[in-house]
Amino acid sequence: MRPAALDWSVDNCTVARAMEVLGEKWTLVVLREVFNGVRRFDDMRVRTGIPRQVLTNRLAGLVEQGVLRREPYQEPGSRIRHEYRLTPKGFDLWPVLVAVLAWGDRYLADPEGSPLSVGHRDCGAEVHVELHCTAGHPVTDPRDVIPRPGPGAHPR
Amino acid sequence: MRPAALDWSVDNCTVARAMEVLGEKWTLVVLREVFNGVRRFDDMRVRTGIPRQVLTNRLAGLVEQGVLRREPYQEPGSRIRHEYRLTPKGFDLWPVLVAVLAWGDRYLADPEGSPLSVGHRDCGAEVHVELHCTAGHPVTDPRDVIPRPGPGAHPR
Repeated sequence: MRPAALDWSVDNCTVARAMEVLGEKWTLVVLREVFNGVRRFDDMRVRTGIPRQVLTNRLAGLVEQGVLRREPYQEPGSRIRHEYRLTPKGFDLWPVLVAVLAWGDRYLADPEGSPLSVGHRDCGAEVHVELHCTAGHPVTDPRDVIPRPGPGAHPR
Repeated sequence: MRPAALDWSVDNCTVARAMEVLGEKWTLVVLREVFNGVRRFDDMRVRTGIPRQVLTNRLAGLVEQGVLRREPYQEPGSRIRHEYRLTPKGFDLWPVLVAVLAWGDRYLADPEGSPLSVGHRDCGAEVHVELHCTAGHPVTDPRDVIPRPGPGAHPR
């Protein structure tokens, strides 16, 4: 059976565009650092082991894309430096990070479990991703979801 | 203020491990194709424009990682070929793909909107990702989530 998706162009696909921003291992690792409160170049470099030039490029790219912003700070006796903070566009990547973490925890963790947990500030319970439809139904099986052309779909 | 995350090792981080599998633009685009029912090499190649060798490598990698499996099929008069189907490990990437799509739609779509929509099979309403804690509270603000050491956390 010929899949209906073959009739539609992927030229303006937003998954592909999102992955132009995110599609590199270190990019999401840098975002993990910032979401964890690690905002300074040297802290990130030492903790992650990302090569200096790669980290410089990833941070510059994320600033250029409007995902991170640079904020000046000054330690006593030092020159002004910058730390990296999430913009609203960056904060909106949080569900992506939680979804990637959940999948990694399920399939790629050591037997002892994940090194990272995400808790709800109010009650402490673990936070996870759920799929719902806008009519309020939970969607638990990927087979219950139909991919279909959106408003910007172009025929091929 | 010194971030608490600096006390903990990232050696066994499952975000980084997940991105070893996913951290490349074309990988998630290949998964988008399969989730959209496009399962055959030639269909994917023509639709996405991924270079032949790159697509071969990505598919082999995803099979090796247990995300996709190869299923034989035969058209009349042709030799046996294989198509690619999601394993359970692959189906569990669905929330990642929906989260990436949502972020792309919000920030990177053309003015006319996204080319792709995901509908609930039962009612047709749009499907999206929500964060909840296991106590059942919706989590709408990333600031309401506390990253903290998990069971597998190692001090640095």
